[in-house]
Amino acid sequence: MRNTFGHLFRLTTFGESHGEAIGGVIDGCPAGIDIDLDFIQGELDRRRPGQSPITTDRKEADKVEILSGVFEGKTTGCPIGFIVKNANQRSADYDNMRGVFRPSHADYTYNYKYGIRDHRGGGRSSARVTISRCVAGAVAKLALRQLGISVTAYTSQVGDIALDNDYRKYDLSTVESNIVRCPDTAKAEAMIRLISEVKAAGDTVGGTITCVIRGCPPGLGEPEFGKLNAALGYAMLGINAVKGVEFGAGFAMAGMHGSEANDVFANENGNITTLTNRSGGIQGGISNGQDIYLRIAFKPVATLLKEQPTVDIEGNDTTLKARGRHDPCVLPRAVPIVEAMAAITILDEYLLNKTVKI
Amino acid sequence: MRNTFGHLFRLTTFGESHGEAIGGVIDGCPAGIDIDLDFIQGELDRRRPGQSPITTDRKEADKVEILSGVFEGKTTGCPIGFIVKNANQRSADYDNMRGVFRPSHADYTYNYKYGIRDHRGGGRSSARVTISRCVAGAVAKLALRQLGISVTAYTSQVGDIALDNDYRKYDLSTVESNIVRCPDTAKAEAMIRLISEVKAAGDTVGGTITCVIRGCPPGLGEPEFGKLNAALGYAMLGINAVKGVEFGAGFAMAGMHGSEANDVFANENGNITTLTNRSGGIQGGISNGQDIYLRIAFKPVATLLKEQPTVDIEGNDTTLKARGRHDPCVLPRAVPIVEAMAAITILDEYLLNKTVKI
Amino acid sequence: MRNTFGHLFRLTTFGESHGEAIGGVIDGCPAGIDIDLDFIQGELDRRRPGQSPITTDRKEADKVEILSGVFEGKTTGCPIGFIVKNANQRSADYDNMRGVFRPSHADYTYNYKYGIRDHRGGGRSSARVTISRCVAGAVAKLALRQLGISVTAYTSQVGDIALDNDYRKYDLSTVESNIVRCPDTAKAEAMIRLISEVKAAGDTVGGTITCVIRGCPPGLGEPEFGKLNAALGYAMLGINAVKGVEFGAGFAMAGMHGSEANDVFANENGNITTLTNRSGGIQGGISNGQDIYLRIAFKPVATLLKEQPTVDIEGNDTTLKARGRHDPCVLPRAVPIVEAMAAITILDEYLLNKTVKI
Amino acid sequence: MRNTFGHLFRLTTFGESHGEAIGGVIDGCPAGIDIDLDFIQGELDRRRPGQSPITTDRKEADKVEILSGVFEGKTTGCPIGFIVKNANQRSADYDNMRGVFRPSHADYTYNYKYGIRDHRGGGRSSARVTISRCVAGAVAKLALRQLGISVTAYTSQVGDIALDNDYRKYDLSTVESNIVRCPDTAKAEAMIRLISEVKAAGDTVGGTITCVIRGCPPGLGEPEFGKLNAALGYAMLGINAVKGVEFGAGFAMAGMHGSEANDVFANENGNITTLTNRSGGIQGGISNGQDIYLRIAFKPVATLLKEQPTVDIEGNDTTLKARGRHDPCVLPRAVPIVEAMAAITILDEYLLNKTVKI
Repeated sequence: MRNTFGHLFRLTTFGESHGEAIGGVIDGCPAGIDIDLDFIQGELDRRRPGQSPITTDRKEADKVEILSGVFEGKTTGCPIGFIVKNANQRSADYDNMRGVFRPSHADYTYNYKYGIRDHRGGGRSSARVTISRCVAGAVAKLALRQLGISVTAYTSQVGDIALDNDYRKYDLSTVESNIVRCPDTAKAEAMIRLISEVKAAGDTVGGTITCVIRGCPPGLGEPEFGKLNAALGYAMLGINAVKGVEFGAGFAMAGMHGSEANDVFANENGNITTLTNRSGGIQGGISNGQDIYLRIAFKPVATLLKEQPTVDIEGNDTTLKARGRHDPCVLPRAVPIVEAMAAITILDEYLLNKTVKI
Repeated sequence: MRNTFGHLFRLTTFGESHGEAIGGVIDGCPAGIDIDLDFIQGELDRRRPGQSPITTDRKEADKVEILSGVFEGKTTGCPIGFIVKNANQRSADYDNMRGVFRPSHADYTYNYKYGIRDHRGGGRSSARVTISRCVAGAVAKLALRQLGISVTAYTSQVGDIALDNDYRKYDLSTVESNIVRCPDTAKAEAMIRLISEVKAAGDTVGGTITCVIRGCPPGLGEPEFGKLNAALGYAMLGINAVKGVEFGAGFAMAGMHGSEANDVFANENGNITTLTNRSGGIQGGISNGQDIYLRIAFKPVATLLKEQPTVDIEGNDTTLKARGRHDPCVLPRAVPIVEAMAAITILDEYLLNKTVKI
Repeated sequence: MRNTFGHLFRLTTFGESHGEAIGGVIDGCPAGIDIDLDFIQGELDRRRPGQSPITTDRKEADKVEILSGVFEGKTTGCPIGFIVKNANQRSADYDNMRGVFRPSHADYTYNYKYGIRDHRGGGRSSARVTISRCVAGAVAKLALRQLGISVTAYTSQVGDIALDNDYRKYDLSTVESNIVRCPDTAKAEAMIRLISEVKAAGDTVGGTITCVIRGCPPGLGEPEFGKLNAALGYAMLGINAVKGVEFGAGFAMAGMHGSEANDVFANENGNITTLTNRSGGIQGGISNGQDIYLRIAFKPVATLLKEQPTVDIEGNDTTLKARGRHDPCVLPRAVPIVEAMAAITILDEYLLNKTVKI
Repeated sequence: MRNTFGHLFRLTTFGESHGEAIGGVIDGCPAGIDIDLDFIQGELDRRRPGQSPITTDRKEADKVEILSGVFEGKTTGCPIGFIVKNANQRSADYDNMRGVFRPSHADYTYNYKYGIRDHRGGGRSSARVTISRCVAGAVAKLALRQLGISVTAYTSQVGDIALDNDYRKYDLSTVESNIVRCPDTAKAEAMIRLISEVKAAGDTVGGTITCVIRGCPPGLGEPEFGKLNAALGYAMLGINAVKGVEFGAGFAMAGMHGSEANDVFANENGNITTLTNRSGGIQGGISNGQDIYLRIAFKPVATLLKEQPTVDIEGNDTTLKARGRHDPCVLPRAVPIVEAMAAITILDEYLLNKTVKI
């Protein structure tokens, strides 16, 4: 039942990799938002397969069709239905996976849970289903833009190559200038080289993405279960292959003393601000007006183009070597997905926060 | 609006540190569960302040009163209301915080969001509100026990003292044998020493907790937004002071290749199992029958018994030194809270999973 | 799981007739509402048993205790927990019902559903559980008062005695001037006489309540499933003994032609209004600024003080005659409950409507 | 935000009358249900415009396309996305409504609420949006069929022509044998005549639909806010033009004494049954295994082919006469919609009820 995300700005998704179409419904989008279709398509293009030598070779146009909820270029407050038709599927590539469970994939768990699964292209477990998130994220970004809030993500680690500094040392407007989406040019080159090597070996590699939200007003998030970090964490941990998330100084804070971890308040020209921001812009679960930043860990893609031992549906030992066209590293294409989920979450929280006073 | 947690097994909480009572409502608890009141009180006692020299000196009985939903020792399927009365409050300890914002605390953000706040003892932002989670968690554990599922957490890091091994190397039945709740006796002693030193200095320290869920059947969790790791992550990130969460090999997987990260399937006496478990018992967002394990990062307690610079509600520079009785390190008392949230989540997912077939 | 009502202003309830206490949690109440405790207790007093000769003789103080969420006389935005302790229970009155199913009561269905039930006083199916709704309704009324919205209900039919006119012909400020809560004095006397006769005969009688909402701004409610009449209808049909609900001209519109049923628009001093109001203030599921009015049908109380044939839990034929103190007619005491559910619904819709624009 | 209906079996809808397509997502459909596409299309055909001389002359194919969630003829447990493309739109018919508010229509309220509206064909307020409900209802019926539960509705009143008897006197298998969908042949002819006369006069007429659910097991519905009648009532009151709903003996029970209204239990060959069924199969909000029946009141269609006075968007007096092709009476086409909403609700409750025990 949880193909819906959000409380007031709500995305419901559907679709499998090799079905007719991927799509969704955006419910609760405020009325009167200017809809820039080119921007929405552009966000999808950032996620598109085949966009560079370090992604899968699969070529898909991934053209979004908006079916409702927009009238004369503006949202009407009614639900926005959309689809992206599937094409360029080679279902036969997956024939050998019908009765075999790919290691560290969703094949076994789906089969156990539902007693049936669409094995073609991973079915519903395919990262292709994140298309819907990018569409809804693009709409959310358009609304956030009217509110002066921006969301930017970038690749901060691939395998053993990690950025040395935090986001404040980089010019985030340069993220799109290289195919790995990393604002450190030297590191970007090393990452691209590593991904190419891994690809050549039929292997894959993991990494981290950092996400920065600027211009977020104080007051978003709620005291108890709906803390802003919990809402954002839930959004990120629902992305395929994510194994961890941390906010502000994150896991490093486990090693600190309070006197080094606390962010001291100061009055900066009449605005209450903090001198440091180890909290990552969230205190007591609520945004404090500083930059919100978080880091998300992705495991390596499970599908390998080399032989792996496994079992089939009857429990017999066998081996499996993927055919088809697969990403050696999801990080570059996951950047817009992280941004999309962050944008959806922040807009949802913004709307929730409008209701705390009459 | 998010003082309710869960979809089918639902906890709604209320209460502030210095109000009349902390309490909650457990809705959707299955009928016919044997309620062991001593066990529930025992779980609260594990969270209780004043339980050892390394927690706050505050003494509170924290006696739970069940007001409904239990008849002749069994749950009836009707909501379970409960309260824990507040006592031993020294509200005057907080008089100096009425108009001043404690660094890295929720004072500023609550005040901004609601335009009003109960400053006494942190009000709703106090960790005291987690009492309700322990009560509901205890009820969930009683239900899970009937299903053969166990949830165990332990302190795996305090400041710079971290366990060297993963959970499989420890006897988790020993966790309660020391006051820091760590299954490595030598490390436990070092942690206790560190906390005592920090306390003496008026400072505080962070750490991590590891949580292990055993006996969880395959099939819990859902493909899209309701992945089991997302549900558990949301639960953990809603606990006060948590700054990060990771599942299985977690952030370390960002540095791996697929060929080292994948968990290969095998047939073990007719059961499909995995030879390794870097996935942490979750694949494609759904439990695979292996142990589920996760690690949670806690920042140091923000309240210091030493002077810190800050601003008051009018934005004037000032300083603040906490009075009152505070924990130098939340980890030992947070162990049962982590278990509670994990137990609630797993039971909720168990119930959800009953509805995927007719 | 549905002991919670509402989307943003949310009431979660607990409690059984003969348990420790009835209570609830109000979550999402806007911050800064002035809380008048006397008003809240006054609303409970209107629902209290033993208030007049035509209600049950049971005497209960029904004193509400607010446990959280209010600070220095104002709501804080944090959840408002409350309890009303049970007293004056005579559980022994119900011993003969332990293994017998009262006709047209919830005994059989609860027993079948849960396999267990608290038979004392009807347990969770007792109308006593509506106490929680009156408390939350009173809080909602206080918020609506600040918005200029009023909710008034009255008894419009008891048995075969029904008011001849619609609400516009009566002075609704007189509703509390008689014990049956009917603004037509002559009819009120006849209703009281009828209830007294029915009570003397050990029988019971049904009736209808009319509810009028004034000052509601246009725009509340939503196009599709969340139509304002659907939200209000859901609220009313959840009240014990309700068998029907109609809005505006209601069932009578089934017999009309469009040309007699339509409400024509007019410009009244710059405000768009309607010349008639058969729609009952709701068009396309959304309030149009006119009075909202609805009528709710209550069946007679099922508990009779005369012998009825029935079966016991093993299916054996038997007879049952209620002991104890019961209402011959719920209508007078149901008036504040109807108002409460209407007030909660309207406030919830008001908050939802704040989020349709940024 | 309420374009989603249901808790576990959930329908989310989108689409406007003159947009690209109407569609929706069915989430939480159990896995393994046999999908009979002809049956689903057949249900849509029952709702289709132009199906008989007493409906609108508009001709639309209304072909449903299932885009996901079905694999090799069975549901997979993944969301079922579907669309029905719009065609045969004559948007120009609505040009005169762009700035004018049709009486008793949603034009004014939508415009006030959102500040923008798609005026073409009523936009989101068009009854055309109920297409999505019929598709989801058909899927629900297929699941209910596997459970032995049937849902049948019929026209029980048109204008002043009402059936004399309750549903037990009719052979419900004959409902589809006439174009007004009424099981009383003589009354059906009179209804058809009345609708034809009304149509000729450019007017419209209201009516009622009765819905009967057979084979529903005891135990569906919940004690407090989620009473089965509340759930069904919410479903029905969300259908366009519905002004009232009643269960079992309904409003007539307001005039009864308890001794005439109660349904006495009896043991019928080992099954506990009731000798009468004035409760309509629901007691204490929970199904008792008897037939569930309810009656729904529809107001006359608001769109008239005769001139009506009204105001325009600036508040100026004007008149309006609809162009286009409109239904003189929605009852015949609303029968499948009522069935659909009942089927969705019952399946949702069936799934919820699976979770009350472990």
